[in-house]
Amino acid sequence: MADAGPAEPSKNALKKAAKEKEKAEKKAAAKARELAERQKKEADDANDVSVDSYGELPLCGSVEFKPTNIPRESLANIAQHEDKTIVFRSWVVNARVQSAKLAFLNLRQGLHTVQAVVAASETLSKQMVKFSGNISTESTIVVHGLVKKTKEPINSASIKDYEIHIQKLFIEAKAEVPLPLQVEDAERPIPSEGLGDEDDKATEGGEKPIVGLNTRLNNRTLDLRAKTNQAIFVIKSGVCALFQEFLSQKGFILIQTPKILGAASEGGANVFEVKYFDRPAFLAQSPQFYKQMLIASRFQRVMEIGPVFRAENSNTARHLTEFTGLDMEMEFQENYHEVMGMLEDLMLFIFKELNSRYKKETDLVRSVYHVEEFKLPESGKVPRIPFTEGIKMLREAGEKLGDYDDLSTPQEKHLGRLVLEKYGTDFYVLDQFPLAIRPFYTMPSPADPLLSNSYDMFMRGQEILSGAQRIHDSKLLDKRMREHDPPVDPEGAGTKDYVQSFKYGCPPHGGGGFGLERIVQFWLGLPNIRMTSLFPRDPIRLMP
Amino acid sequence: MADAGPAEPSKNALKKAAKEKEKAEKKAAAKARELAERQKKEADDANDVSVDSYGELPLCGSVEFKPTNIPRESLANIAQHEDKTIVFRSWVVNARVQSAKLAFLNLRQGLHTVQAVVAASETLSKQMVKFSGNISTESTIVVHGLVKKTKEPINSASIKDYEIHIQKLFIEAKAEVPLPLQVEDAERPIPSEGLGDEDDKATEGGEKPIVGLNTRLNNRTLDLRAKTNQAIFVIKSGVCALFQEFLSQKGFILIQTPKILGAASEGGANVFEVKYFDRPAFLAQSPQFYKQMLIASRFQRVMEIGPVFRAENSNTARHLTEFTGLDMEMEFQENYHEVMGMLEDLMLFIFKELNSRYKKETDLVRSVYHVEEFKLPESGKVPRIPFTEGIKMLREAGEKLGDYDDLSTPQEKHLGRLVLEKYGTDFYVLDQFPLAIRPFYTMPSPADPLLSNSYDMFMRGQEILSGAQRIHDSKLLDKRMREHDPPVDPEGAGTKDYVQSFKYGCPPHGGGGFGLERIVQFWLGLPNIRMTSLFPRDPIRLMP
Repeated sequence: MADAGPAEPSKNALKKAAKEKEKAEKKAAAKARELAERQKKEADDANDVSVDSYGELPLCGSVEFKPTNIPRESLANIAQHEDKTIVFRSWVVNARVQSAKLAFLNLRQGLHTVQAVVAASETLSKQMVKFSGNISTESTIVVHGLVKKTKEPINSASIKDYEIHIQKLFIEAKAEVPLPLQVEDAERPIPSEGLGDEDDKATEGGEKPIVGLNTRLNNRTLDLRAKTNQAIFVIKSGVCALFQEFLSQKGFILIQTPKILGAASEGGANVFEVKYFDRPAFLAQSPQFYKQMLIASRFQRVMEIGPVFRAENSNTARHLTEFTGLDMEMEFQENYHEVMGMLEDLMLFIFKELNSRYKKETDLVRSVYHVEEFKLPESGKVPRIPFTEGIKMLREAGEKLGDYDDLSTPQEKHLGRLVLEKYGTDFYVLDQFPLAIRPFYTMPSPADPLLSNSYDMFMRGQEILSGAQRIHDSKLLDKRMREHDPPVDPEGAGTKDYVQSFKYGCPPHGGGGFGLERIVQFWLGLPNIRMTSLFPRDPIRLMP
Repeated sequence: MADAGPAEPSKNALKKAAKEKEKAEKKAAAKARELAERQKKEADDANDVSVDSYGELPLCGSVEFKPTNIPRESLANIAQHEDKTIVFRSWVVNARVQSAKLAFLNLRQGLHTVQAVVAASETLSKQMVKFSGNISTESTIVVHGLVKKTKEPINSASIKDYEIHIQKLFIEAKAEVPLPLQVEDAERPIPSEGLGDEDDKATEGGEKPIVGLNTRLNNRTLDLRAKTNQAIFVIKSGVCALFQEFLSQKGFILIQTPKILGAASEGGANVFEVKYFDRPAFLAQSPQFYKQMLIASRFQRVMEIGPVFRAENSNTARHLTEFTGLDMEMEFQENYHEVMGMLEDLMLFIFKELNSRYKKETDLVRSVYHVEEFKLPESGKVPRIPFTEGIKMLREAGEKLGDYDDLSTPQEKHLGRLVLEKYGTDFYVLDQFPLAIRPFYTMPSPADPLLSNSYDMFMRGQEILSGAQRIHDSKLLDKRMREHDPPVDPEGAGTKDYVQSFKYGCPPHGGGGFGLERIVQFWLGLPNIRMTSLFPRDPIRLMP
């Protein structure tokens, strides 16, 4: 069903195909004969003892053959195979002919690289050495080779104690030359937070070329082959898995709420419009209304992982127009701090498991970007700092701002440094935000009507989550919508069903929404959020 | 970050709020005083011994109070609490006053219902009995009550052996009357496959009203409270979790590919257009191109759970314009049947675990819709039926169709019955589909150039997945695009990056995309796919 192909078979196409069937079969047979003959001739000419041990395989799947079913090994387990011959797929990082009798290849599989040697002998021809040393970078190959312990550690490969003595080598998919982007160039850090091509610098003398983010993103499928990128997206997948693992143990179910809306809901700004048959529709800016409606539907605890769309014309290092929301919403019994406790425990679990299950990937990325470790509170207790207390800390540090002012991004980062100093943690919570700077559905605070039962969570001084107790009573919600600046119509097309759903006994509830890309960015300390999106979208970029 | 609120605090709003602060505080204090006085007076008047044991709680979170931190119990564990007092939240299915001294309530929590008794005594007033018996249906309450074994099983509740003797009862959220839809009416099966209001029938005499799907969907947040609906979405969440559990064990990572595209890709039909700042963009019809590009980026095994958008103007019981795709793509070593094997094992795992972990929910829904068990092959081997063999079976059963014709929906269902008869399974695979009816990126079959290395999977005779080996060579892909009817431009804005990514050594790969809602629908045997979407979208429906 995901393959959106032509719905109906065309009769013309069938007839045409029928005619071409015979033709194609004849052609294929002739071609195969020709190839076999030519290879045989070349081999005979050269007296090549390795004629069956190397070459280019026909396109996999395009010719009938009996699978060998030989197991393919992972380079991760290479030590288990010492002095044995293994078969594995890998790709060529580089290949060079050392002499007529010797070629070296650097082969990669996942995050591992290994050195491979092709040495001429009585059973391995010079022709095969030449062929092997000339394979183009990034080609995919199948290797049969003997695993040998090395005498000295190999510095140019991630596997230092073993090398492969190649016995057979076949190209499965040849890479064209030249590559528009060298994967090795994409392994180095991006030179700035910038987006443009102004970073690109060509090679001068022995210097390595510098490749900016824009060039990398324009060639994203090659760029993504870089080890750092592979590690980033393994970690991103891990954060999703950990989010679900923790919350499903707590009784949350995974939901999917609609992304196409009949009317703009939360204010109507920054919304993308969709042409929905003959009428306008809108892309969801968050699952906010729907996850609350499901609490009203007695779902008790829900979570969602899905795209959110923001039509903000911001070309900064921390904005995307499409990103992944990690959302949760739950009823609570007595106090919205129950929800905050759940969110804190969730994040502590994620951090802990990233540090163990994804240590290798984390270390790899942080070593390239020279990022410090992510500090967590030694006590295990996450600081819950009242917003007013945060303001006080900033004022004492020289910032000028009023009791109910929102924090600017530099002020947030400043506060992050102050909290790190005082509490020794890169992760913390601000609680009881001013009511006026929060959405209309936020529950006002009983302690101070200018404050609200709402909170933000921060990593390295930057916001990763916004959340609150929500108003679960339709009358109060109606009132707050009308009082809002600008007012929101509780009877509007985008709000009516939402307000109605709180008329019929909705329990008290709260929740929050994380930006997945931000968690990954700040965990790893990356300079630009685009690096954490496979194919990022911003006001300028819609390709690839 | 998911809370899309006003970005900037308005100074006017702050001033205004500051003024209102004092006012509100005074008002709240006055109101609290007034309420306390009135309650005291009423109690004194009536000499009510239970004055502190019942009533309506103030809106949770709107007044400061010290949480009791009394643990709230789940009715699932009621047997553990025999002869003990428990505190729990639940909602009122119905309440009735039996006499001045006795009221009965039917209370629900999740899929459980329990009978509760309020009996006047020296310590429980008649006023409390009256109050309890008059609570409106669907109100949320907190109960303190003694768990007692019943002498005879209670037929009207799902918990038959225990009842609650209420000691305290507080309303947390009162439901308004009348309800636009009775939850109990939504518990009965929908009367037809139809979408319209023509199914709705009012109560006549003792008959229960019949409520059609349209009315239910118009009141979806109440409709979703029905036990069948809660069970459907627990199962849907379960299918997602099982999909990820199985594949992540096999080394798949979870990806997020963009839903906003710069150009329509797969042919351009049935695509929703988006207004993207000052230019047109499009919603993704599937992650097809991107998941393949990630295989070209060496991701090896990827999976995605995300919305897919189809602008098909079909108002049937099996189409949605927005549904959830469960996608996977993987490289394989020698033969695309490796991918089919992975998909078969995945579905067998999901079915097995649905039968154990989600048995209660499955049984509940199937009992309402009188659906037969889902049969799986006794041998554990999923039949892989060549498409040509399927055609032969249908012809022998009297259907008229050509060797390379696509199957109509009735023919697919017919084949499903034939396969069930012959192989004893509701789940099977058709392999080697005609090339002309598959997308251009499908690998042609080496056995017959009119066929292709592609497959569909079926449940109860209906398609749940379409998949194939993909062309991993840019030259062949280019050729197939030009030959396609109608031709697709390999240099087009929506295809260029895709075709390019196969130039640089992409390994052979295949995959498939499931429709999540279809798996749930056919597993449970539901008459309409809208029942498996929380807030379904079709050409007419965009609300709620």
